[in-house]
Amino acid sequence: MTSVDVQTSTLDLGPARALSCRECGHQIPLAAEFACAECFGPLEVAYDFGTVTRADIEAGPKSIWRYKGLLPVPADVERFPNTDPGMTRLVKADRLAAALGVKSLWVKDDTGNPTHSFKDRVVAVALAAARTLGFSVLACPSTGNLANAVAAAAARAGWDSVVLIPSSLERAKILTTAVYDGALIAVDGNYDDVNRLATELAGEHEDWAFVNVNVRPYYAEGSKTLGYEVAEQLGWRLPGQVVIPVASGSQLTKVDKAFRELGELGLVDPTPYRIFGAQATGCSPVSAAFKAGADVIRPVKPDTIARSLAIGAPADGPYVLDSVRRTGGAVEDVTDAEVVEGIRLLARTEGIFAETAGGVTVATAKKLIETGQLDPDADTVLLITGDGLKTLDAVQDHIGPRATIPPTAAAVHEVLNRG
Amino acid sequence: MTSVDVQTSTLDLGPARALSCRECGHQIPLAAEFACAECFGPLEVAYDFGTVTRADIEAGPKSIWRYKGLLPVPADVERFPNTDPGMTRLVKADRLAAALGVKSLWVKDDTGNPTHSFKDRVVAVALAAARTLGFSVLACPSTGNLANAVAAAAARAGWDSVVLIPSSLERAKILTTAVYDGALIAVDGNYDDVNRLATELAGEHEDWAFVNVNVRPYYAEGSKTLGYEVAEQLGWRLPGQVVIPVASGSQLTKVDKAFRELGELGLVDPTPYRIFGAQATGCSPVSAAFKAGADVIRPVKPDTIARSLAIGAPADGPYVLDSVRRTGGAVEDVTDAEVVEGIRLLARTEGIFAETAGGVTVATAKKLIETGQLDPDADTVLLITGDGLKTLDAVQDHIGPRATIPPTAAAVHEVLNRG
Repeated sequence: MTSVDVQTSTLDLGPARALSCRECGHQIPLAAEFACAECFGPLEVAYDFGTVTRADIEAGPKSIWRYKGLLPVPADVERFPNTDPGMTRLVKADRLAAALGVKSLWVKDDTGNPTHSFKDRVVAVALAAARTLGFSVLACPSTGNLANAVAAAAARAGWDSVVLIPSSLERAKILTTAVYDGALIAVDGNYDDVNRLATELAGEHEDWAFVNVNVRPYYAEGSKTLGYEVAEQLGWRLPGQVVIPVASGSQLTKVDKAFRELGELGLVDPTPYRIFGAQATGCSPVSAAFKAGADVIRPVKPDTIARSLAIGAPADGPYVLDSVRRTGGAVEDVTDAEVVEGIRLLARTEGIFAETAGGVTVATAKKLIETGQLDPDADTVLLITGDGLKTLDAVQDHIGPRATIPPTAAAVHEVLNRG
Repeated sequence: MTSVDVQTSTLDLGPARALSCRECGHQIPLAAEFACAECFGPLEVAYDFGTVTRADIEAGPKSIWRYKGLLPVPADVERFPNTDPGMTRLVKADRLAAALGVKSLWVKDDTGNPTHSFKDRVVAVALAAARTLGFSVLACPSTGNLANAVAAAAARAGWDSVVLIPSSLERAKILTTAVYDGALIAVDGNYDDVNRLATELAGEHEDWAFVNVNVRPYYAEGSKTLGYEVAEQLGWRLPGQVVIPVASGSQLTKVDKAFRELGELGLVDPTPYRIFGAQATGCSPVSAAFKAGADVIRPVKPDTIARSLAIGAPADGPYVLDSVRRTGGAVEDVTDAEVVEGIRLLARTEGIFAETAGGVTVATAKKLIETGQLDPDADTVLLITGDGLKTLDAVQDHIGPRATIPPTAAAVHEVLNRG
């Protein structure tokens, strides 16, 4: 936990006390800021946690708000309408474990969230903080899961939303955001253009909270709840190993932060854990840096079916390297063909249909085991953060019916006898 | 609760003691039977419930298995790998309530289930009972949600599955079942042909459990969990009114059964409740019979975008009429245009994206209020049983981005000022 030196804010954001620069440590009062005025480093929420007990948490709501004492949200956060994400299933995955050759494996299935990805977690925290910070419009640039989550959360809260997407986005992804009836605006340009436009608009509109821009420090903290839930659902202990997909890298660093906080607060024994990052080879700047022993991430132009991970210049890449190296983990990457195989393997063994990012996680776990980087005897958790229903195009050329037959029992038997 | 007269079975199916004919009351020991040998009426599970307390239930797993003492499943059911459905959100829907002009409204959001529909509930119970009854293959004829649920549950359990679908099914629906890698077989014919084939195969293969054919009495009981959860999540009380979509009609009758059981067991006060059925006008045989004051359902040829409700000859139609008339409810139907409006209204007000069946429920609730059939002052629950991601085609001509613009802030402002 970062200690807090500055005059604490009068805003009620629970245990949050300040924003602290990850690079230089400079602190400022809680506000809608995301970059350090001293060194331009990223700002992160710093806390003064009081006493938080397992009993307090277990008596809380069956959503991420059971951890409100560890998040930058008001004490009465659950009173305001929100999508109540979290407390998704932690599935003991014995059949996948057998297929991968590991002893004890769990899958954290975040497809059960309201819009079926982990983005509901970060958006719910961003919305709660944004309300306290005085915003009244929820906004984001996005190409998929985030757009769904922002539009749905704003609808539920009765806020206006502004969601900016590249105009080339597939129709299905447009529909799943448009249905919530916020201001969905298609921008002629690529994702970088959309992002630049969002940053410009965030500067102009003091009532617009771009969840992943001007309230990013709060938003990012939402990913800690994945770590808290894994530990609580394992019976209040840390797993030995966890494999996490890497896009911006924020999620991985926040799960690491969550595990450390739980240990420091005495909510779990601070047992050692190793954190592994998973990328698609077609967008693997963090994996490349890890393998090269470098500290600096060299940006790439993404080319992979795992579009929700296709961030070529990941902002938190260096911090991913820190987490992974400090805990004795690794970052690995897998080809698009392996991603499809990963999706199919998880579905076949556990009945969970993940989006491409989940395929990256499963396939990377497989590769880490095969290359001896992951210990097959340690308790291992895989984070599945999004839903296969949203990335049907990735599997459509690979799967289908076994056969098309006339409506007779004999024809059915023939298909089954074949194989 | 049906009293049990026959020699009780030695099978461990929890509190289940016999199968009882809904028409003539004839009882037989627990077995894989679905039609009465005396009168061909449908068989239903009869129980001897012991003492079941709120505390027992609340101490149970966060899934339908917390109600295992009220279901035809073994006492150790949760030890076997299954998809652990249930305990989905009950959302207090104040914005939808305001839009509809009712005082207290809740939405039971079953899109949070593992394959995103209530079918995970019935399939999980069918699988558990089928295991005890000696089956080893899970099967069904289906055109959508059920196929997903059966293929996923079988994959998770390590069972073979056989899923029969009409070959004309849309590619997206094929993919969401095929990914689980069971025997998915496309049949040249319509759904009736597929259904007939399933019944024939169920007779030939004593190890194949067709969830909605030869183990249907057990399968159907899974829908009771929707009723149990609503009551528990309301703080152990029954709602005044509930609106439920009607396909075969089974779900509606089982929610009614669940509410009665809870009252009889003293788990809730047996306060009066009214049950309302919702159909699409293009397949509204139960609504037509209700309005005509008839007891017999006249089959129809379905023509509606609400395909998951498109059962022209609903097996439990007469029992739906019984439930609705006994409780003082009604059955109403809405046009396809109203269905789309219902989907959009729910998404816009509560951030929940329902499939067409959910649109039917919301639009029917609206119509019931406007026509004075639903009491705007009574606590009301709407069951949303499936996910909009699976029926994108229903909304695709109705929604989209507000505008497509160049990447400038001025262009964004122009769009927003317009709208």
